[in-house]
Amino acid sequence: MARIAIVGTGFVGRAWAISYARAGYDIALWDQDADAARKALDYIVGVLPDLAANDLTDGQAPEVILDRLKPVARLAEALEGVDHVQENTPENLEVKRAVFAELDRLAAPEAVLASSTSALLPSAFTEGLPGRRRCLVVHPLNPPYLIPAAELVPAPWTSPETMERTADLLRRAGHAPIVMKREIDGFLMNRLQGALLEEAFRLVADGYASVEDVDIGLRDGLALRWSFMGPFETIDLNAPGGVRDYVLRYQQIYSNIFPSMQRRVDWAGPVIETVEADRRKRLPPSDLGRRAMWRDRQLMALAAHKRRTRRELGD
Amino acid sequence: MARIAIVGTGFVGRAWAISYARAGYDIALWDQDADAARKALDYIVGVLPDLAANDLTDGQAPEVILDRLKPVARLAEALEGVDHVQENTPENLEVKRAVFAELDRLAAPEAVLASSTSALLPSAFTEGLPGRRRCLVVHPLNPPYLIPAAELVPAPWTSPETMERTADLLRRAGHAPIVMKREIDGFLMNRLQGALLEEAFRLVADGYASVEDVDIGLRDGLALRWSFMGPFETIDLNAPGGVRDYVLRYQQIYSNIFPSMQRRVDWAGPVIETVEADRRKRLPPSDLGRRAMWRDRQLMALAAHKRRTRRELGD
Repeated sequence: MARIAIVGTGFVGRAWAISYARAGYDIALWDQDADAARKALDYIVGVLPDLAANDLTDGQAPEVILDRLKPVARLAEALEGVDHVQENTPENLEVKRAVFAELDRLAAPEAVLASSTSALLPSAFTEGLPGRRRCLVVHPLNPPYLIPAAELVPAPWTSPETMERTADLLRRAGHAPIVMKREIDGFLMNRLQGALLEEAFRLVADGYASVEDVDIGLRDGLALRWSFMGPFETIDLNAPGGVRDYVLRYQQIYSNIFPSMQRRVDWAGPVIETVEADRRKRLPPSDLGRRAMWRDRQLMALAAHKRRTRRELGD
Repeated sequence: MARIAIVGTGFVGRAWAISYARAGYDIALWDQDADAARKALDYIVGVLPDLAANDLTDGQAPEVILDRLKPVARLAEALEGVDHVQENTPENLEVKRAVFAELDRLAAPEAVLASSTSALLPSAFTEGLPGRRRCLVVHPLNPPYLIPAAELVPAPWTSPETMERTADLLRRAGHAPIVMKREIDGFLMNRLQGALLEEAFRLVADGYASVEDVDIGLRDGLALRWSFMGPFETIDLNAPGGVRDYVLRYQQIYSNIFPSMQRRVDWAGPVIETVEADRRKRLPPSDLGRRAMWRDRQLMALAAHKRRTRRELGD
């Protein structure tokens, strides 16, 4: 079983800790704020019973998982003998550079150094390091213990072995690793999300549809098939001869609308008033926290549903 | 209860027939090919037991639903006393113009005339009609008896009453109508799908990720939350202060990547070889039909799951 250090135990770090500990890995929790690792553990104590009740702990009792999590006071201690470091410090280039220099100096040479960053390219904070071949980005969607996909992003110098070992570590933890071939701003998921959001904001800004109608179009429409097949398999099954047939039949529709997607609407401009008015009408500010808990329960129920259909209908 | 005429009973028409008949509406099936309506009925006979077995017929026996479906030989007969016409003829402007002229001439003045077209704007084939105020597009995702969303698209002259009556008819059939405010190429869902697909094809063509990795990014990542919340609610819950807070924190990431989305990759160019090779490796051509049945079973299971969570967790 692997030993893992979680470096930075805030919102993202504590969630990774749950995912890795559930997989049977031994976890050291370290944060530069001495209290933070303790607080993360308190949070995890609260979440585990919910996961167990939703059959999302592989039959393990919460205590068994908790036993694998150890807050430690010194970074060097957290890094002792680890196979994988998951770094979750603030999204600031200078911070990442300093942290990765220290990780590379302190961690055993065979340890992989992975950053959870969503905004910075791995090349930007690992170039000068002696151990840069073992550095990469492993970016989750939140929370990773409920969302399997995580994207592995190499810098130009990241070794293939680093990518393979990390993909394997994630797979053994029930994750679905996306193994990117080279780095690009936004990685894969935020680029796809961004492309869709740009069109969503444009449609609302230009007065074609309401905020709620966009959400209906996904939650009662497009995202149903995508939630178990993805977009390529969806179009592969949407023409009798498969994806090539689909492209030959329908590409014209999409290439016709492409020119009207070249203009960016400022999301923080007038359209945000429309978007926020609609959202706050449906969900008052005081209910945001409660609704986030509802979302996590929905994600748990969906994870259980997908496991069931995988058993009954196959992958 | 409403009376509905299905005009054109192929792939799309027969699926609408199931959705409307399940809602209790009386359905006349007409197709210019005299055999087609009969064949559509045979198809429906095959599907209904599956729907009943998945608790997707509101407890109604298949025979009860079948009783509401009547193939008729003459168009005038199909249109007698109808409240709503759902037209599903070939995606050809001249055909649509001719069909709509005939529908407008033959149908009682209070009937709504709805086209299932995905490719043509309603203004393009209804402008010259005396009854153009009652014409619109009602575009489903396939199959509509498993996917609630359907987009209502007005021509500039479509009356508000036509939009309201149609939205109401769909809601009573368990649909989630998207009520667009004005027409635009691609409507809402194909525009959102297209925006995402453009980025998906670009990422594969430029060698950043595999076809399968894009699908993982949706089916194990982005589409999980979207499948019960949609993209606006997702970002509303992804920052402590709601959607405005999200936009202020993260818009920069998206505006940075926008310029790299201005170039269109020809989907039928070299990239289609990569896409097809990957898809055909995972799914041989002979398995496309079997896989489409798997997709429909997945959609049925997901519909049942969403009904259950709505009951247990609320909307």
